[in-house]
Amino acid sequence: MNETLITLPFRDRLTEQEKTFCEQNAFVQHYKEGAYILGECESGCRGMLHILSGEIRAFIISEEGREITLFRLGAGENCVLSASCALAQITFETQIEVVVDAEILIIPASAYAKLMESNIYVRCFTYELAAERFSAVMWVMQQIIFYGFDKRLADFLLAEYRRTGSPAIRMTQEAIAQSVNSAREVVARMLRQFASDGLIESRRGEILLRDIAGLERIK
Amino acid sequence: MNETLITLPFRDRLTEQEKTFCEQNAFVQHYKEGAYILGECESGCRGMLHILSGEIRAFIISEEGREITLFRLGAGENCVLSASCALAQITFETQIEVVVDAEILIIPASAYAKLMESNIYVRCFTYELAAERFSAVMWVMQQIIFYGFDKRLADFLLAEYRRTGSPAIRMTQEAIAQSVNSAREVVARMLRQFASDGLIESRRGEILLRDIAGLERIK
Repeated sequence: MNETLITLPFRDRLTEQEKTFCEQNAFVQHYKEGAYILGECESGCRGMLHILSGEIRAFIISEEGREITLFRLGAGENCVLSASCALAQITFETQIEVVVDAEILIIPASAYAKLMESNIYVRCFTYELAAERFSAVMWVMQQIIFYGFDKRLADFLLAEYRRTGSPAIRMTQEAIAQSVNSAREVVARMLRQFASDGLIESRRGEILLRDIAGLERIK
Repeated sequence: MNETLITLPFRDRLTEQEKTFCEQNAFVQHYKEGAYILGECESGCRGMLHILSGEIRAFIISEEGREITLFRLGAGENCVLSASCALAQITFETQIEVVVDAEILIIPASAYAKLMESNIYVRCFTYELAAERFSAVMWVMQQIIFYGFDKRLADFLLAEYRRTGSPAIRMTQEAIAQSVNSAREVVARMLRQFASDGLIESRRGEILLRDIAGLERIK
């Protein structure tokens, strides 16, 4: 079996015939930082992605340019939402860009659909991964819709920035939680989301604001 | 096999041993309209629900009382999010109430977890269903977060109501879409969401506003 295929998560569950089918259809593509794997100019259905090296980011974007990062993936991780046309149940569209130069093993959507059809383990792997990613991102969406918590936290960070004149906010998550009337875990999770969106960087004992305009765009 | 178990979606995939295990663990529960299957006072993990009759509704609710309906299910349909503790990947919590008196076959979470472990088809069925429900609800959340489209549509309906003095808005979806600067399909989908939330009722050639206060709460 082709070396790059060895790391496929469901490899041990494939029949010899399916392994050959994978070898015939899968290919490795190199992407430069900033390249779009899925986006406005790309087809909405690329296939199943297995990251060999580098990093990619899946996100949704509004007409006004506001982005929400859904997840980031590195070496050894997999993306099935990029094969959404092979998944009748998934009608949700995302964009995917390359954050760090990447080598990606791609099983094209049509071939992947055949594998899902013939192999229950591939099918199960696919939906388990989709459900996991969706569950994580729904938490963030719920916080935004119900509590406007993204805005509350962004407003607080911006107010501190203006008060102190420094983009480095020296406060613990506990102290921030008290200030914005929330729980430490909720602050921690939303700060991770902000970091993932490139808005801030969490450092030891401080939070560095990296994109003031981006924080101001949250509303 | 117990008569009520015959309609289980994955029944044909169970071994004889697993069928017996189901019979020993599953039970039918009767719920009155308005009862909570999952809610503040109920455990966050009930089990897999198979609706025999009646109707249930899954939703999320904010501290201020704003609700978003995730989905409604009737006879023959199944709910696996109510077995979330059996699904390591699902960390998203919902509430479930009974809309129409219901008879529900419940496979308790611990027993369901065992079935998912022993039977790949049960496992696959579960995640496929979870991914499908998540995908649908993420569309709604995206519209709300990015475009504030729920508010725009609610504001428009309320303005028409005040202008005409009647809760029955006599306009086509096409005409509404033009008025709110959107596409007909987006209006249609959000109106279905509003109807599901009990805010409006779609009738032939008109939209009946059923919960003015509820529409005003959208912000």
